[in-house]
Amino acid sequence: MNINVFIDDKITEKHYKEAIAEYEKRLTKYCKVKLIQAKNIAEISKKIKAGSYSILFNPSGSLISSEELASKIDTLGISGTSDINIIYSEENLETEEHLSISNMTFGLGLTTVVLFEQIYRAYRIINNHAYHK
Amino acid sequence: MNINVFIDDKITEKHYKEAIAEYEKRLTKYCKVKLIQAKNIAEISKKIKAGSYSILFNPSGSLISSEELASKIDTLGISGTSDINIIYSEENLETEEHLSISNMTFGLGLTTVVLFEQIYRAYRIINNHAYHK
Repeated sequence: MNINVFIDDKITEKHYKEAIAEYEKRLTKYCKVKLIQAKNIAEISKKIKAGSYSILFNPSGSLISSEELASKIDTLGISGTSDINIIYSEENLETEEHLSISNMTFGLGLTTVVLFEQIYRAYRIINNHAYHK
Repeated sequence: MNINVFIDDKITEKHYKEAIAEYEKRLTKYCKVKLIQAKNIAEISKKIKAGSYSILFNPSGSLISSEELASKIDTLGISGTSDINIIYSEENLETEEHLSISNMTFGLGLTTVVLFEQIYRAYRIINNHAYHK
C-alpha cells in the first residue's frame, strides 16, 4: 500500500519533524508512506493520482477511532486499492471520506504527527502487533 | 494558576520531551505548569492537593473542544481555583471531570504533548492571542 499524507503548509518545528521521521522509519515494514507538504489545497488537488482513495481530515469531519481507521485501511487493501491519500487541510476538498481526529484544534505539525502515529497504530492493529508507545 | 499535568508512566521519546519543554517555556507567561510522571494512578492520587480541581483525560471521557477547555480553565480561574490537575491515565479515578481528547488512542508521549498544546492553546484563546502553530 502507498500512503500519501498531504498537508497544506510546511512543518517548522524540529521535534515534530523528528517524530514524523521516526514513524516513517517504523512504517517501512508495513507500507510506503510519503509526506507531501504543499502550499495550498489547490496544489494538493493537482498531485492526487487518479484511481487513488482520498480521506480528508479536518475538524468538520466525522470522528473515528484508531480501530475503525485500521479496519478501513485493511479493507481498502483487500479490495485492491493501492494508493490512499490522507489529506489535512482546513479547506474542504471533494474526497471519498471526510474524517476528524478530535473536536479539539491542533496545530499543523502536531496534527501531522497524530496522523502518522495513527497510520502506524493502524498497521500494528491490522498485524496484531502489540503497541503501547 | 498552577496547572499540574499528571501522567501514569514515564515518557521515553526525545522528540516528545522536547515538544513538551517548548510548551512549558511558552506557558511561563500565562501560568505555572508542572509535569508529574508518576508510576501509577495510586501514586497520582496521593500527590493531588486538597482543594484543587481535577480533570481526568482518557478515551472513555466526554469529548471537548479547545474553546470549551479554554472557557473551563478561564471560569475556574475567575471563581478562585488556584490548582488544576490534568490527569492522564487509562485507569479511572474519582475526579471533578472526565474528558477525552479523541476517539482515537494515542501513546503516552503523544497524549502528553497534545495536553500541553491544548493548555497553551487555551491560554492563547483566553488572552485573545493569535495561534496558528
